Amino acid sequence: MFEKEYDVIVVGGGHAGAEATAAAANMGSKTLLVTMNLQTIGQMSCNPAMGGIAKGQIVREIDALGGYSGIVTDRSAIQFKMLNKSKGPAMWSPRAQNDRMRFAEEWRLMLEQTPNADFYQEMVSGLWVEGNRVVGVRTSLGIDIRSKAVVLTNGTFLNGLIHIGEKQFGGGRAGERAATGITEQLVDFGFDSGRMKTGTPPRVDGRSLDYSKMTPQPGDENPEKFSYLDTPKLTKQPDCHMTRTSQLVHDLLREGFDRSPMFNGRIKSIGPRYCPSIEDKIHRFADKDSHQIFVEPEGWNTVEVYVNGFSTSLPEDVQYRALRSVAGFENVKFFRPGYAIEYDYFPPTQLKHTLETKLIENLYFAGQINGTTGYEEAASQGLMAGINAHLKINEKEPFILKRDEAYIGVLIDDLITKGTEEPYRMFTSRAEYRTLLRQDNADLRLTPRSYELGLASEERMRKMEEKEKKSQEFVDFFRKTSFDPEEINPILEKLDSATVKQADKLFKVFSRPKVTMDHMLQLETVSSFVAEKELDNEVLEQAEIQVKYSGYIEKEKQNADKLHRLEDVRIPENFDYSKLKSLSFEAREKLQAIQPVTIAQASRISGVSPADISVLLVFLGR
Amino acid sequence: MFEKEYDVIVVGGGHAGAEATAAAANMGSKTLLVTMNLQTIGQMSCNPAMGGIAKGQIVREIDALGGYSGIVTDRSAIQFKMLNKSKGPAMWSPRAQNDRMRFAEEWRLMLEQTPNADFYQEMVSGLWVEGNRVVGVRTSLGIDIRSKAVVLTNGTFLNGLIHIGEKQFGGGRAGERAATGITEQLVDFGFDSGRMKTGTPPRVDGRSLDYSKMTPQPGDENPEKFSYLDTPKLTKQPDCHMTRTSQLVHDLLREGFDRSPMFNGRIKSIGPRYCPSIEDKIHRFADKDSHQIFVEPEGWNTVEVYVNGFSTSLPEDVQYRALRSVAGFENVKFFRPGYAIEYDYFPPTQLKHTLETKLIENLYFAGQINGTTGYEEAASQGLMAGINAHLKINEKEPFILKRDEAYIGVLIDDLITKGTEEPYRMFTSRAEYRTLLRQDNADLRLTPRSYELGLASEERMRKMEEKEKKSQEFVDFFRKTSFDPEEINPILEKLDSATVKQADKLFKVFSRPKVTMDHMLQLETVSSFVAEKELDNEVLEQAEIQVKYSGYIEKEKQNADKLHRLEDVRIPENFDYSKLKSLSFEAREKLQAIQPVTIAQASRISGVSPADISVLLVFLGR
Repeated sequence: MFEKEYDVIVVGGGHAGAEATAAAANMGSKTLLVTMNLQTIGQMSCNPAMGGIAKGQIVREIDALGGYSGIVTDRSAIQFKMLNKSKGPAMWSPRAQNDRMRFAEEWRLMLEQTPNADFYQEMVSGLWVEGNRVVGVRTSLGIDIRSKAVVLTNGTFLNGLIHIGEKQFGGGRAGERAATGITEQLVDFGFDSGRMKTGTPPRVDGRSLDYSKMTPQPGDENPEKFSYLDTPKLTKQPDCHMTRTSQLVHDLLREGFDRSPMFNGRIKSIGPRYCPSIEDKIHRFADKDSHQIFVEPEGWNTVEVYVNGFSTSLPEDVQYRALRSVAGFENVKFFRPGYAIEYDYFPPTQLKHTLETKLIENLYFAGQINGTTGYEEAASQGLMAGINAHLKINEKEPFILKRDEAYIGVLIDDLITKGTEEPYRMFTSRAEYRTLLRQDNADLRLTPRSYELGLASEERMRKMEEKEKKSQEFVDFFRKTSFDPEEINPILEKLDSATVKQADKLFKVFSRPKVTMDHMLQLETVSSFVAEKELDNEVLEQAEIQVKYSGYIEKEKQNADKLHRLEDVRIPENFDYSKLKSLSFEAREKLQAIQPVTIAQASRISGVSPADISVLLVFLGR
Repeated sequence: MFEKEYDVIVVGGGHAGAEATAAAANMGSKTLLVTMNLQTIGQMSCNPAMGGIAKGQIVREIDALGGYSGIVTDRSAIQFKMLNKSKGPAMWSPRAQNDRMRFAEEWRLMLEQTPNADFYQEMVSGLWVEGNRVVGVRTSLGIDIRSKAVVLTNGTFLNGLIHIGEKQFGGGRAGERAATGITEQLVDFGFDSGRMKTGTPPRVDGRSLDYSKMTPQPGDENPEKFSYLDTPKLTKQPDCHMTRTSQLVHDLLREGFDRSPMFNGRIKSIGPRYCPSIEDKIHRFADKDSHQIFVEPEGWNTVEVYVNGFSTSLPEDVQYRALRSVAGFENVKFFRPGYAIEYDYFPPTQLKHTLETKLIENLYFAGQINGTTGYEEAASQGLMAGINAHLKINEKEPFILKRDEAYIGVLIDDLITKGTEEPYRMFTSRAEYRTLLRQDNADLRLTPRSYELGLASEERMRKMEEKEKKSQEFVDFFRKTSFDPEEINPILEKLDSATVKQADKLFKVFSRPKVTMDHMLQLETVSSFVAEKELDNEVLEQAEIQVKYSGYIEKEKQNADKLHRLEDVRIPENFDYSKLKSLSFEAREKLQAIQPVTIAQASRISGVSPADISVLLVFLGR
């Protein structure tokens, strides 16, 4: 029923699976996406939003690399916000609310328009392995489908177990069945597996809410977007709303604690620390008497509403009673209660930087199966697994992003080097070089590399080059062009910034903290340059950042270069650390287990000290 | 978590459940729709099409009564055809291809816009019964929800068992789990239950088909629509395509017969006779060397294609090999194989005309649970169950459609009087008075009755009245107005129809078989009347039918009146037939079991002879 042999089979159609399919197919691999339900491709299982702090940067990186998440998000967005706009540009993080139905439909239609991507609806119940190499999958109907590589993106479906209060039942998502067979087979093969937990809040009927008691949360006045390509910008945006819990709400929730699977020991696995359930928040931050709740519409037309901040697995009657005491929710009607779900994952130290497993060749893992949480984290891993599966079977060099190149690089390096004991989420603080890894320059950082791979399109590359060229010209303009003190002093006076006595380069005054592009544009020379060169907002933003933050950026680049020197010191494969008695015991054990590829990676393993690194460098002849 | 007590709870969100919810809520009942998955409300489980012969009439009737199916169909249609246009107007049957995703989305959004309709996602695992009356439902989480009435519309989900070749697994639909608990409880309560079977063809990738080897099946040049309200008409329509099986295809299919669950005894229940699987067709019509296959797009944008006519539960490898030998399918790629599904139903003789069960008060059944097949049949039962549940709990007279009033009347009367041993599908031949039950006059027949109930809207009623008034005026015009022989004779000559010597009424010449409205419109008097009165196409069609078929219509009305006299003879409730030894044994047994409400209904029970009816009439004092 299938190609005699696919190049790549992707198991699962969520954010990871969808990106893996798109990437492998767009690079030229005959790719088959196998999912338990073709109607749930690109389903947002939890909140109807993409991006956010550090996560928005990842979506921009995915887009820069030629993935689809940014395009799908733009096409299905209902509201857009650039978070942290008051902070430095390294912190600016795009976030969109999405129409849940549209989002999934866009994903499905985009994948259908992708040549080389085939689809099949069934449960994959096992891998087809020959020796130490995966050669395909087996479905629950007993169909063997052959492929050169397999990407597993099972999300929360592997032995998924849903908890609501004291009740528990098998399922991969509310209303959908769990997947079985794969974990057991991989454990037999020698993989470590563990359990993780995540949760989701109730969905409620927006018609039953009193928004007059909540604070409107409008989108940005001039909404931007995710994709560097020509996707639509929003022209109208519905409001989200904010409300708060109270002591009364907390008291009502506490009444269910003895029936909570989180507290009575029924759930042993660990949930996402930074996306805690409401009962967790009350428990851990007992001194706080109120928590924020964001009320997010699920789409343009539906009355369904997502209660962000109220994730819970308390008994449904407790959920209901407590939520009814939240301002605006007095008459709330539930569409479904919140729940927790436990699922299997595989500690990601069992992976290479390419997301290929160390134990089985040509088998890749991406998304929650690696212990991560978040659509963006999952999508980026899917993209990287899809790319690397294609490269591997074509005997090409792997595609690995360094920590100073992309959040995606930080994510994967963290996962495979440090592993994770709890669902891993990206933060700006995880990136050593976050001044370099901005949302505005993901295209400049990554599109050339992806274009070289054959993934980013000609159009994307051309757009990036034009932006780069124009930004550079504009920065040069500021470096070369002098201001007229008479013209600039009134502006500086208004800003309470020292006036200047004699003419100097624009760059110098633009570098002052209070001076922005808007002020520069008040100068005749600048505005006429912009008009003449037809510079758009993206170029203006880019140039502004490059001028105003040039010092920081330069310094981080130098730091990153130092790291690169360590990155260049490669450690031979299957290096036997047990012989190096001069290493500390802990370092020896961890290095042996993780088998870092470079000295830089070795240095990031917790428990490996600078002294251990010196020993290694000496041993490797450096 | 819910209203203290709902008026009506509807279990299931398919065609029956969605119409039941809309009807009960629109009549003013606080209604809760409980479904296993809110994202699959209004899902088309099988072919992406509504209407067809006799079924199209049902959709028009649903619309005339104020149901939603016609509106949803119009809003999501991609192609429209009036079938049987070459036959008399009693046979004209509207049919639409639909965008599957849009259809479900429209249903969901329309229900969400319905005041009084609430939603909840969970499996209902049992009924809450007190004495002989249902007072609510219990969910799988153990939540009891109270209501005055319950409508069960479980479709194929009750103990659903999916078969593909020799494999079988529990499920309510591909990729969705089965529902359990309800059958067992009802059987304990004394209900008879049985198993039925249905099936669906493979879904395939349209990109893999060669349409140049198939015959295009375009939509109508001037597409009409289903709803009598102002829904959009199609302005562009994609083609469907037709191809055929061959002896080779049949031979390839036969190779799998020993592994067919239909033939090896694994499936014992009976499937829909008039929607047979391809293996059934080959088996039963062994002399035919080819069967038609209609290739139907699943929507405006998706590449998914429905292979109408190739329903099968043969092993997937057999499905694939055989389909690949069909012209145009040489390189076909499967999205998923066809399958058969067995599910529980309850023989509908256990119901009253209102679709309330005889055993449990205020419990209603609608759709496949009653042994029917087809979206339209299900939707109409849902509508009637929703209406009657509302009327009952408000202590109002039941709403029952007679056999000469609506196909819906025929359907329900057939079900509860005759029962059904195989999935029941509507045909024009089932209606004794099909000349009365046309698609063009469903509004004239039914809207006034529904308006009186408080269901059909003011707007709907006003539109119907205007159509009725204008049609009547136009018919009167034909009766009163004379033609000029000199103007009409050239037209008659062209038609090879006898010319006329002297002036007479237009009605007379219009009644001739070859003369149509188009010919009439060539007459100055007629066309100026149409222009002056601003008559639209619906009025023209209505007047034409009333003029040209007046004889037939009049005769059928007389026949129907005779029936009504028998309908008026009511039989007392719980009538004890065992005492009437003068009835034949078979009649006594069947009458006792079915407990017909009127003599007319008794006469339609198979095995009850005219002699038995005479006995009954005498006994009842007539």
